[in-house]
Amino acid sequence: MVDREGHLQWIELSRTKIAEYGLFDIYAARRTAGRRDAEFLLLDAPDWVTIVPYIEEKEAFLMVRQYRHGSGTVTLEFPAGIVDSGECAAEAARRELLEETGCTAGTFDEVAAVNPNPAFMTNRVHTFVATGLVCDAELDLDENEILDVETVPVERVAKGLGTDPFINGIMVISYTWFVRWRERRRPKERER
Amino acid sequence: MVDREGHLQWIELSRTKIAEYGLFDIYAARRTAGRRDAEFLLLDAPDWVTIVPYIEEKEAFLMVRQYRHGSGTVTLEFPAGIVDSGECAAEAARRELLEETGCTAGTFDEVAAVNPNPAFMTNRVHTFVATGLVCDAELDLDENEILDVETVPVERVAKGLGTDPFINGIMVISYTWFVRWRERRRPKERER
Repeated sequence: MVDREGHLQWIELSRTKIAEYGLFDIYAARRTAGRRDAEFLLLDAPDWVTIVPYIEEKEAFLMVRQYRHGSGTVTLEFPAGIVDSGECAAEAARRELLEETGCTAGTFDEVAAVNPNPAFMTNRVHTFVATGLVCDAELDLDENEILDVETVPVERVAKGLGTDPFINGIMVISYTWFVRWRERRRPKERER
Repeated sequence: MVDREGHLQWIELSRTKIAEYGLFDIYAARRTAGRRDAEFLLLDAPDWVTIVPYIEEKEAFLMVRQYRHGSGTVTLEFPAGIVDSGECAAEAARRELLEETGCTAGTFDEVAAVNPNPAFMTNRVHTFVATGLVCDAELDLDENEILDVETVPVERVAKGLGTDPFINGIMVISYTWFVRWRERRRPKERER
């Protein structure tokens, strides 16, 4: 089978769950490309959401500082989380923003969703820009979640992106979508 | 223990390998934050590299079209791969570019390295911009790797990023680093 450009696609023959780790499951997929077939490893995770809470009047973001167990370092990044079962991405974005920052937002715009690594991951990460923030709730954190909420100038993020404490790759994606969201909105503002 | 900003860091007490999957290993890390301790899941993978092969005279990229088993779709993305044992990231970038496109490059600039998801992944993804391409070698692909090399205008990538076939999140990161690399270089060009 080929796609519109004539490129070969693999067809799935079977899929077996190998392990469950809470954050994700591991599957082995048996797939065929005509004369050959082989087994491929899949990391199957729920979709992720990242929220870019943008405070327009301060030209700043609301960000969370937290210890990240994968990198073993403290990072400064946008609020983010996992889409729970039965939730849509927009609902997860609202919930995570409220839990991690105590804020609600007047507007949530989904800018884009991409696959974190389509080589072996099955899920997508959705980025929402949140504006019109009202922050008057208590944080509601998971048992081992310890985080500080900070207001960070957009300029500081733009300059520091890719260096400590802004080393989260998902955040680079979300920042890129934020820039795109702002560029798309500017022509409209000029028309007013 | 706290970092420079006074934020709590967890201390590792022990780490146990739970599974090996070839692409990555899974570990359980027992860590303490003073009064509490808990177990955290780590996905331990070798570092990844992405190469942005930039053809300046055509204002285009050299990209690879391939079926990706995680997303189950055909994507168009920058050449990329895994840093082999004993290799540094720059060596892996040279090797992957040659294997996947048949090209060598006069210049490889590493722009940045970030963690793909520091919540649970331990590795980093390095982005190199490759210029001065000489493409006269045969492709050298892994057994189940099937790919087409294409020349894609920068403008097409800029506009299509985040939509099919440009849905690879790692590629969004690499494209962002490419834009940064070009911005940094432009003032120097003006001085000439």
